[in-house]
Amino acid sequence: MRKETFNADTKAINDLRVLTLDMIEKANSGHPGMAMDVAPALYTLYAHHLNAFPQDPKSPFRDRFVLSSGHCSALLYALLHMAGYEIAIDDLKSFRQLGSKTPGHPEYGLTPGIDATAGPLGQGIAQAVGMAMAEKHLAALYPQAKHLSHKTYVLCGDGCLEEGISQEAISYAGNLELNNLILIYDRNGSTLDDETSVSMKDDAALRFYSAGWNVLHVKDGNDIRTIDRALTKAKKSRSVPTAIIIDSTIGYGTPLQGSHKSHGSPLNAEDYEKTRKGFGADYEPFAVPEVSTNHLRALIKERTAALYEEKKAAYEEFLKTEEGKTYLKGVERVDYLSYLPDAPEQSRAEASRKVSGQIVAALGQKMPSFFGGSADVAASVMTAIPGDPLFSVVHPEGKDIRFGIREFGMASFINGILLHEGLTAYGGCFLVFSDYLKPAIRMAALEKLPAIYLFSHDSLAVGEDGPTHQPIEQLAMLRSIPGLVVLRPGDERETHFAWAEALKRKDGPTAIVLSRQKLLPIENSSPEGFARGAYVVYQPKAKIVPEGEVIASGSEVGLAIEAAKLLEEKGIYVNVVSMPSFELFEKQDENYKKSVLSLPYGKRVSLEMATTYGWGKYAAHNIGADAYGASGKEKDVLKAYGFTSKEVAEKIQKALRG
Amino acid sequence: MRKETFNADTKAINDLRVLTLDMIEKANSGHPGMAMDVAPALYTLYAHHLNAFPQDPKSPFRDRFVLSSGHCSALLYALLHMAGYEIAIDDLKSFRQLGSKTPGHPEYGLTPGIDATAGPLGQGIAQAVGMAMAEKHLAALYPQAKHLSHKTYVLCGDGCLEEGISQEAISYAGNLELNNLILIYDRNGSTLDDETSVSMKDDAALRFYSAGWNVLHVKDGNDIRTIDRALTKAKKSRSVPTAIIIDSTIGYGTPLQGSHKSHGSPLNAEDYEKTRKGFGADYEPFAVPEVSTNHLRALIKERTAALYEEKKAAYEEFLKTEEGKTYLKGVERVDYLSYLPDAPEQSRAEASRKVSGQIVAALGQKMPSFFGGSADVAASVMTAIPGDPLFSVVHPEGKDIRFGIREFGMASFINGILLHEGLTAYGGCFLVFSDYLKPAIRMAALEKLPAIYLFSHDSLAVGEDGPTHQPIEQLAMLRSIPGLVVLRPGDERETHFAWAEALKRKDGPTAIVLSRQKLLPIENSSPEGFARGAYVVYQPKAKIVPEGEVIASGSEVGLAIEAAKLLEEKGIYVNVVSMPSFELFEKQDENYKKSVLSLPYGKRVSLEMATTYGWGKYAAHNIGADAYGASGKEKDVLKAYGFTSKEVAEKIQKALRG
Repeated sequence: MRKETFNADTKAINDLRVLTLDMIEKANSGHPGMAMDVAPALYTLYAHHLNAFPQDPKSPFRDRFVLSSGHCSALLYALLHMAGYEIAIDDLKSFRQLGSKTPGHPEYGLTPGIDATAGPLGQGIAQAVGMAMAEKHLAALYPQAKHLSHKTYVLCGDGCLEEGISQEAISYAGNLELNNLILIYDRNGSTLDDETSVSMKDDAALRFYSAGWNVLHVKDGNDIRTIDRALTKAKKSRSVPTAIIIDSTIGYGTPLQGSHKSHGSPLNAEDYEKTRKGFGADYEPFAVPEVSTNHLRALIKERTAALYEEKKAAYEEFLKTEEGKTYLKGVERVDYLSYLPDAPEQSRAEASRKVSGQIVAALGQKMPSFFGGSADVAASVMTAIPGDPLFSVVHPEGKDIRFGIREFGMASFINGILLHEGLTAYGGCFLVFSDYLKPAIRMAALEKLPAIYLFSHDSLAVGEDGPTHQPIEQLAMLRSIPGLVVLRPGDERETHFAWAEALKRKDGPTAIVLSRQKLLPIENSSPEGFARGAYVVYQPKAKIVPEGEVIASGSEVGLAIEAAKLLEEKGIYVNVVSMPSFELFEKQDENYKKSVLSLPYGKRVSLEMATTYGWGKYAAHNIGADAYGASGKEKDVLKAYGFTSKEVAEKIQKALRG
Repeated sequence: MRKETFNADTKAINDLRVLTLDMIEKANSGHPGMAMDVAPALYTLYAHHLNAFPQDPKSPFRDRFVLSSGHCSALLYALLHMAGYEIAIDDLKSFRQLGSKTPGHPEYGLTPGIDATAGPLGQGIAQAVGMAMAEKHLAALYPQAKHLSHKTYVLCGDGCLEEGISQEAISYAGNLELNNLILIYDRNGSTLDDETSVSMKDDAALRFYSAGWNVLHVKDGNDIRTIDRALTKAKKSRSVPTAIIIDSTIGYGTPLQGSHKSHGSPLNAEDYEKTRKGFGADYEPFAVPEVSTNHLRALIKERTAALYEEKKAAYEEFLKTEEGKTYLKGVERVDYLSYLPDAPEQSRAEASRKVSGQIVAALGQKMPSFFGGSADVAASVMTAIPGDPLFSVVHPEGKDIRFGIREFGMASFINGILLHEGLTAYGGCFLVFSDYLKPAIRMAALEKLPAIYLFSHDSLAVGEDGPTHQPIEQLAMLRSIPGLVVLRPGDERETHFAWAEALKRKDGPTAIVLSRQKLLPIENSSPEGFARGAYVVYQPKAKIVPEGEVIASGSEVGLAIEAAKLLEEKGIYVNVVSMPSFELFEKQDENYKKSVLSLPYGKRVSLEMATTYGWGKYAAHNIGADAYGASGKEKDVLKAYGFTSKEVAEKIQKALRG
């Protein structure tokens, strides 16, 4: 920061604060507390450090910024406006209004300059870690594209650091020595309900040190010179991520300064006027002085104009090279086509996790954009890439990520990797632990990110590990998430089809649900049927109208066919439908749906070794497991819960004939 | 530890290891790695420190022990057997077999001496924190019952500490200065896939220090003298929780010693034999020498026999006092009856969160066993107790818990509080963030704990905060969890009924789902109908058979009645059913169900401002929101998503008449 800008910066910061307050007051909704205290830091970052480009907010070589404290959105929108992003004063006036570009919490894809959706606390830190991972990995894959290198910044408060996900992110970033990551911790001493000390008295510096971070401390949130120096220093880190801890006073400049009461509600009219006056605003609401806007824009232009042109030219040159073309395929997600192994003509009896493992191995060895791993279950969920050195600070080119026992973190890092663009990211764990990463799956769906989750050990057939490890309600949980496509393949071929579907997706996440145990081959498995979500895989040999339809997924498709054959011996003819995906099926037209589910509702029976919750839509009779499992040998558990072909056949018969 | 026991202890530890290996080999399933290295620490704890009583494993004044690394179950079962708990050699022989007392992971309620279910990593630490909180609070409530005081121990490994929940627990325990909590961290340097350093290189001591813990370090996991001294010192802590970090070697004594390959699979036959021999086992599998068993039992008896009698006598005396009777009511969960405010005769138009807040305030001021709070949303979810000093180290008598922004932690602490027994525990957050605590809700259901969750801001009506804060799929997620009862009251009276149901439960958790906005009174709301999960609350005035049935919950009950009235003007008569709980309704007999849902499936319409996922069971036509919400004024958002009485009426008409 140059000395001569200090006064203009200070004025611009106060004008930024006033503009932010104007937005919150007009909306009569929002969070003034943190915005008032962190404005100097955020302004200093954008004015003097962040290499992002208002004229091209999606440029791949920009620095990334994540506002992990999403409730501080008004400040960021106001700053983006002042910085010259395509956010007009009218957009600021419609803060938190339906259809605006300036929603209550930042939404990725909606607003220029917003690099991540935020609001659910803690996840922003983890998403930033994912971005930094992607940057490191791409730099290693494409050493000739030095211009792609950049920093990732994340701003958080006490709330983010109380959430457990923050520790997963901090610990993992330290382990990876992500020196391209800079975290700004606005320690304003207050949460929504109380002073922070009521719930947390951590020594934050020690905590970051314990994970191997560099820590810088700014004692006064208004001291932009020290903030500036800290950012300068952080950018120079050669080996580890940096946390800049800034002590500030919540609601600075308002009559509620220092009190948690300033956190989450607009000021009353009197306090609002007082605060504006205190910040020297002698102008109407939203009439932010041009002198401040111009000052900020000039600063950014002066600092980044040449850099932008230089990076852009280099980027365009790079795209003309073979490596550049390969890179671009990864960005556009078209590079899987030639690498995905062909499905076999006929399925073998095999566990779908093993089939998936072979696909992962093949893609990992050949597909340039492939990047992922598991939460310490590489050997069980089969996510290992043979010969890969494992992604690390020593081997940033490694494709096989060992996320540690951090499921939630894993899924959030993946979100960050995908927000960064250029890579195909996936992560695996046991299906039952999809519980742990639910909030990050929702985030991927909100951000429309094509994350791929591999969830194995998908039923009671887990056996000995018992009820804590046997999923029951997880399929329902996943299927209920808007925007997530859940695929539960029923045999070897269907597992190939599932991977193809997952890699094809561009607008949202996909979960592939995999068995621990061997699956019986489905004779009529088809890629077209699979892609439509449900299709008839078995019809009685006798050419008569069936008496019932059994709808199953995954390992239960084979079981249903066995049961159907037993019923045939009794003269009861039923079709079997493989329904690997509710979501894909729902996208089909009514004619197709009726061709698959051709009998009346009362003649349909669902079969899944999981909760029946959700199956009522397709079948009046639901065979499943609506209670927790038990520890025992797979065979014993399945028998105890009635999942033998004989018992299933009896239940189907009872359902159809009473 | 007395010097003279050292040799016998060492032999007993090796015999314990062999017995553990025998179990894993016989089951051909299990985790030898950690068991081998942590046997000395666990043995030393039980032999020389833990004030628990094999003859009375549920005594309320015992020390608690949580095996957070649940996969180490074989070691604990073997130790409990040797210590004299009611676990026979035959039980050990049926390790991981269906119907045994010795399942793959410890299950609370199934096995004597198991104080918590474990397996999902990290949660054990948080449950232990909850137990320690309960101990502190009860000690403050009943100062005359000093004999109830005890320590809580938890054993964890690297996996637990990689999980984010561990940080929520560590940070909060430090904040509360829980000197009654002792954590043993078996740092064996290995996870399932790799050396721990591949995913975590944290300085664990610094990390605990950062949260205000005392840290002790044992350099050699076999050094039982130092372990013993560390435990002695930890028990004396007057002000903070203690972490004992023990460096050990995974798979100690096996040919795979030091390798992650020893973590999760039985040894092969040759390695098994070698290991047994190495530990000096010259006896048949399961023939654990009496000398070791006797030695351990004698140690425990000598140390605890008098203590037990003394505590038991004091406890029995205490139960005769007024305070003791009050305490016992809390244990038996019968103490709510006289404290719960009566429901009003007629509902007022009020937000259900506000009604709940009034009930919380009333119970908090009067009900002795009441203990809970929220994850930094006391003012929004209305969990504050007026006049309460807030639970803290200075005010352990405080009933209002400020959990911090730690939703998952909150629910796990609640599990620990309830495992401890004696208190009624609850916690609140926004419904959308029930995602964060899903794994702990599942745990509560597995442990059959009567946790109460207050989830407010339960629909798109959240408004300005936007899609990150508007629940869509959360109701489905919650309803799909076996053992959880979900209650979504539709007006003031129903909110009272919901609290009564929640407080009545003894065998599992309950979620009360609350609105941010005002709810219209339901004229015919009834406690009997509510308790049965669904009941008719509106019938057309004209006494004719209705043309359709609209089933709704929460805020949509009032909306459905409004729509029904609009339809009446057109001569379309529909019943409205309030269905506050799927789970309670499913418990009713077929006659009752048919009396409520009296029309055929095709004539039923569900209405909920949430995903329709799951409603297919009750109604062929589902009005809901199967996509994410948007930021805007409540009224604007509801209009945009079609939740006005006019539009709902049109949709119902279309559903019924095409």
